[in-house]
Amino acid sequence: MLLKTTSQSLAAQLAARLSERMVTGLLAAGSRLPSVRQCAQQQGVSPSTVVAAYDQLQAQGLIEAQRNRGFYVRNRAAAHVNAALTASNSVVDSGTPAPASGFEAQHRPVNATALIRGMFHSGSDKLQPGLGAFPPEWLQTSFLSAAVRRVTSGAQLQAWSLQYGEPAGDIGLRQALSGRLNAMAIAAAPGHIVTTVGATHALDIISRTLLKAGDYVMVEEPGWAIEFARLDALGLRILPVPRGPDGPDQVVMARYCELHAPKLFVSVSVLHNPTGYCLSPSAAHRILQLAHQQQFHIVEDDTYSHLAPEHVTRMSALDGLQRCIYVSGFSKILVPGWRIGYLAAPPDLVERLLDTKLLTTLTTPALLEKALAWCIDQGLLRRHAQQVRTRLDQARSRSVKLAQAAGCTFVAPAAGLFGWVDTGVDTDALAQRMLDLGYLLAPGGLFFANRVPSTLMRINFCTTQDAAFWQVFSQVRGQMG
Amino acid sequence: MLLKTTSQSLAAQLAARLSERMVTGLLAAGSRLPSVRQCAQQQGVSPSTVVAAYDQLQAQGLIEAQRNRGFYVRNRAAAHVNAALTASNSVVDSGTPAPASGFEAQHRPVNATALIRGMFHSGSDKLQPGLGAFPPEWLQTSFLSAAVRRVTSGAQLQAWSLQYGEPAGDIGLRQALSGRLNAMAIAAAPGHIVTTVGATHALDIISRTLLKAGDYVMVEEPGWAIEFARLDALGLRILPVPRGPDGPDQVVMARYCELHAPKLFVSVSVLHNPTGYCLSPSAAHRILQLAHQQQFHIVEDDTYSHLAPEHVTRMSALDGLQRCIYVSGFSKILVPGWRIGYLAAPPDLVERLLDTKLLTTLTTPALLEKALAWCIDQGLLRRHAQQVRTRLDQARSRSVKLAQAAGCTFVAPAAGLFGWVDTGVDTDALAQRMLDLGYLLAPGGLFFANRVPSTLMRINFCTTQDAAFWQVFSQVRGQMG
Repeated sequence: MLLKTTSQSLAAQLAARLSERMVTGLLAAGSRLPSVRQCAQQQGVSPSTVVAAYDQLQAQGLIEAQRNRGFYVRNRAAAHVNAALTASNSVVDSGTPAPASGFEAQHRPVNATALIRGMFHSGSDKLQPGLGAFPPEWLQTSFLSAAVRRVTSGAQLQAWSLQYGEPAGDIGLRQALSGRLNAMAIAAAPGHIVTTVGATHALDIISRTLLKAGDYVMVEEPGWAIEFARLDALGLRILPVPRGPDGPDQVVMARYCELHAPKLFVSVSVLHNPTGYCLSPSAAHRILQLAHQQQFHIVEDDTYSHLAPEHVTRMSALDGLQRCIYVSGFSKILVPGWRIGYLAAPPDLVERLLDTKLLTTLTTPALLEKALAWCIDQGLLRRHAQQVRTRLDQARSRSVKLAQAAGCTFVAPAAGLFGWVDTGVDTDALAQRMLDLGYLLAPGGLFFANRVPSTLMRINFCTTQDAAFWQVFSQVRGQMG
Repeated sequence: MLLKTTSQSLAAQLAARLSERMVTGLLAAGSRLPSVRQCAQQQGVSPSTVVAAYDQLQAQGLIEAQRNRGFYVRNRAAAHVNAALTASNSVVDSGTPAPASGFEAQHRPVNATALIRGMFHSGSDKLQPGLGAFPPEWLQTSFLSAAVRRVTSGAQLQAWSLQYGEPAGDIGLRQALSGRLNAMAIAAAPGHIVTTVGATHALDIISRTLLKAGDYVMVEEPGWAIEFARLDALGLRILPVPRGPDGPDQVVMARYCELHAPKLFVSVSVLHNPTGYCLSPSAAHRILQLAHQQQFHIVEDDTYSHLAPEHVTRMSALDGLQRCIYVSGFSKILVPGWRIGYLAAPPDLVERLLDTKLLTTLTTPALLEKALAWCIDQGLLRRHAQQVRTRLDQARSRSVKLAQAAGCTFVAPAAGLFGWVDTGVDTDALAQRMLDLGYLLAPGGLFFANRVPSTLMRINFCTTQDAAFWQVFSQVRGQMG
């Protein structure tokens, strides 16, 4: 809400709010601002205030008027954000016909930057339905301080601070991870494991080690926007593979192999983001066969590992780490701020991946890795994860009912942290309207490599149990419908 | 030393030692093993033991015999290490004539991997003359546990562990860094600063943001092998710029600009590694002029910042962060294991660099950043750095005398952490011999982008104050001379 203060006019406040959105990418270059009347209505100010605010933004060179068409965000204002964080012409069409042509990089109201930066400081005290993680209060534990005390008492703090540590990561943590992987039937010795700065870093290390600019890579679609953006930034060519309930579309994959000989397939096999799908055993088997025949590697991104049962099908278990590289981390379940992730790789790739880690960050902080290892070894993480799962199950059933009552249809069965729903209205526009009211949504278009308008939306079950949110949502949706 | 044990034969021990060196890259693919007689002498075993060990390695497919030429490391054994960590055909010759041609990627006995991995676990209890950092005991402080306690007591641990933290890094640390930079006459607001996983990560983020595969980049030579390797791994073309006592060779730089329009120049302007040279004010001025004319950016890598006086000339101070990006960190002076570095960039680049950070690691651990900020704010780091400098001055004068007495000539005046000396013998071969005796050296060839045999060597003043080392050194050198 804009409030009258003595220090800053309403127009200046509105201009500041809009220019901040341009910087963070919430208002992308080329996107159209609401009309003066719409904006006045949305912001609860008079049209003359909006005119004054738009004047200021024009004077600052941030927006431009186009005759009879309204106001547009100028490229200069946010172009750099788009360049880095949205996949554009590197995306190859998923069918066999001509490549996607009508894609306009200019019209993407809420992009990956916006969503991801929203994860960090939302600027609102409301729960964020578009959030990609658990809210901090869900991760509260009683054992974290004991874990930290154990590794910082006496001479240990100095011992683990004053040296770079093992290149592959703390050996105690790698042993604990090896134990966890073995429990999931993934045979990975500590020597096959490399710790990283979150799973993000693991995915980055793998892409950089196995691929070079111009290479083709298959990625599930819908999928995580940051993954598209990272591959794009590395100059890779993205081949989107439709993800179904049982797994990725194998016909499309086989066709890609014939046409482009892709070197890598990136898959969130368990509790896929955003759909919540889990891979079926037969699909896992057949994809591995294709990978062997066609000589591509697979990254199995198991970010949501702790939210799924251990016995669920994972390609890395069937494969025995031959063509699969397993990736996971602890940001979703325990300590996002510690930035600890890891990869487990085939023996012939471990050294190369380790070299890339050395080139990018040298090592990772051993102190935090040791504290985490203790939490795992003591069974504390496992118990915590169980509690989180139970609480999430309750949240999910509440949230599903509310979402359905608000007119959303679940496109995939509700599972894990996220729901994938059809709202019936353009979610890019919806996200803009809701943002004015303090809610960050995750519009469906964000999950497509070749971004298209979409009526889909990803919701976080933790942050959508609140009837108040759905009331506002219904209202706004009603106005749009 | 190989010791007779009941569990493993001397030959098996020797074979294991040599195969480990192949994996770590200390024995590179294509390099020749010592003759049976030489090896027997060096290792203090009988020739028949060496023959048995070489047989085992041959059976394992790690080495191969070449008729009348001896034994060579097979490519398969270590090829992957070389591929990732040694600059090769991407290096452009520093002169204008034909590009370097006689470069043989196969013959590099001690490569960047070996040196850098030696930093982590040397496998020897001896001080390592090739070490690139301070030994842990030099970094002992009394205040580290107080710093950690401050950020982990009460609710703070949870608050700073359960969220991702600010994308640009902890604001308290960025304020402290801004203060430090201002004291060095570098005008950088907290908003111009981005924290990273060590200075290594900062350099990586910058290269990835500003350059794409095939672009030209100027780098000082001699220079840090890991920097050459990183740029090479990104597919960049390296233009080595000879570094003199006053600064980089400006005639060569101007010529490169005409020929290749490089986009970036990477410079360790203060206490340059390995020479210890500091940039002169006039050279700084002229390089900045060239950068403005030719539209390239400069990375000023100030890794050794804390070992130099604040008033020393830095390009970032003259430039006011227009074309310069400043990079530094705390691994050399305080807490290598915490992996904290940072960059300060021109306003128009900050957001792009931040996007790359998000794509590579999302954020960095706020907990450790907050603890470090406290050490800086309390003046504790400054006092510690002064003490380290004083101790280093003493170590340097002892080390210089011993090195000269052992027949080394200082190529550059002794300053900072490293000495750059001429041994009069091939330091690649010397490094191999010394390694057998438990000492890791840093042979000069490692500091050249286009690696050539060299009689130069970098020594760490902390670890070369010991007469015992220089005795062994003199003996081995004498045998070679």
